[in-house]
Amino acid sequence: MTPFKLTQKVRETARRNGKLGAGSRVVPEETPIAFSYGGSTHAVMMATPGDFEDFAVGFSLTEGIIDDPAAIESIEAVADEKGIDLQIVLKDEQNDALTARRRHMAGPVGCGLCGIESIEQAVRKTPSVTGSPLRLTQQQIVEAVALLNGQQPLHFETRAVHGAGFYVPGKGLIAVREDVGRHNALDKLVGAAARAGHSGASGAVIVTSRVSVEMVQKTAIIGSPFIIAISAPTALAIRTADEAGMTLIALVRGAEFEIFTHSDRIQSGAIADVA
Amino acid sequence: MTPFKLTQKVRETARRNGKLGAGSRVVPEETPIAFSYGGSTHAVMMATPGDFEDFAVGFSLTEGIIDDPAAIESIEAVADEKGIDLQIVLKDEQNDALTARRRHMAGPVGCGLCGIESIEQAVRKTPSVTGSPLRLTQQQIVEAVALLNGQQPLHFETRAVHGAGFYVPGKGLIAVREDVGRHNALDKLVGAAARAGHSGASGAVIVTSRVSVEMVQKTAIIGSPFIIAISAPTALAIRTADEAGMTLIALVRGAEFEIFTHSDRIQSGAIADVA
Repeated sequence: MTPFKLTQKVRETARRNGKLGAGSRVVPEETPIAFSYGGSTHAVMMATPGDFEDFAVGFSLTEGIIDDPAAIESIEAVADEKGIDLQIVLKDEQNDALTARRRHMAGPVGCGLCGIESIEQAVRKTPSVTGSPLRLTQQQIVEAVALLNGQQPLHFETRAVHGAGFYVPGKGLIAVREDVGRHNALDKLVGAAARAGHSGASGAVIVTSRVSVEMVQKTAIIGSPFIIAISAPTALAIRTADEAGMTLIALVRGAEFEIFTHSDRIQSGAIADVA
Repeated sequence: MTPFKLTQKVRETARRNGKLGAGSRVVPEETPIAFSYGGSTHAVMMATPGDFEDFAVGFSLTEGIIDDPAAIESIEAVADEKGIDLQIVLKDEQNDALTARRRHMAGPVGCGLCGIESIEQAVRKTPSVTGSPLRLTQQQIVEAVALLNGQQPLHFETRAVHGAGFYVPGKGLIAVREDVGRHNALDKLVGAAARAGHSGASGAVIVTSRVSVEMVQKTAIIGSPFIIAISAPTALAIRTADEAGMTLIALVRGAEFEIFTHSDRIQSGAIADVA
């Protein structure tokens, strides 16, 4: 399959310095991407058309369809003029989790909970992450975000996409993924980290975006005890992180940040060499 | 029903000026809100728990379930500990559009296309907006965004929600709505404008957020020929606006802005009194 373009340079009429004139701007592409299991479409997301295998693995993990990338037999990305169908074959076609939550849906940028029939089902039980012994120093929190800020080529080009990174102490950011949708960026990251053999419990999820409850749920389902965001959290995200035993840190700007839950997982110590 | 709190003041540990200390922050609430028609749940969105009637009317309109607010017999917001069920009774229970697109889904913040089984269905045909004679001057574009910037109390309090306004020349912003999700903010706005008797063709949709394809589709379905955004558009949003005959203006900052499609709908003229 020919790689899709992740961005497009478009012509525009810009008003600058008091007058209209011809200009151009690079904007992010947005493409319907379907997830099909055993030939049946499970979801359609509006997403950046790249990192298809990461997306397929990560979505399958955070939606609870699989609990190990090895459960996937094959992934094929099939494109037509309207979008991309990620055709996923599971080793166990009778996959219980999939059957139990079988639903048909299409989601826009940001869609992750779709297809569950009621609020009770929508508010999924969030797993506890207290099994992870991971601790971070203040220095590492600041470092992780500074690293993410430096590794977002699509954002540098368009200023209009979200980024997500997985930080492992001593190894730095082992993966970064970007997408027009923040949930998609996180799913792609989860897939990339899992495919590289990193357990969720071994590191922290770092995101550029706001933290809604689903971002916490996706982080919890991979077992990571940290979600660290540049933007702000919602109240429900904070309550959910608190109940899951997760440390939620947000509004990280330079060496300043705010810890909303489980600050005991932060080790003390000075911060050096921070811009 | 007791009004829900739209924000929560939470305690936190903040690192400021080089040291950790106790602090607090006001963050937006986020609540599952279900849309039920005739007793059957159609969708669950993660949203700001307010403006329920606007949300019910606007969602029903932009999802194509109704084409006139008068098609709704009654709306009742029923709360339980987990969320809010908007119980909508249509005058015609056999509503064809609803039956045709019956689906079961739950959507997070930002979810609007959910439940359609395939990409073909996900990429809905966007109606043309060329029937509207509306034109705007450059001055009006700048004025509309400046007005929206001044009418966002939730955003002033939290810096973490999206806003949407409906601008009618000569009348200013006739409604503004805010939500943790940009699609929800737009749906609430659509409902507010429709309930106040304004036709979509009579004004421009103004949003603080980025413009994805769905924001264009929702704007087209109410017949408005303008979507004006403070943030950036996606390439698919631009193509969709172009095909619908819609004028897409984005990256409005003070007196500067960028017109991506159908600039012929902008009247010339100087901009005065712009900060």
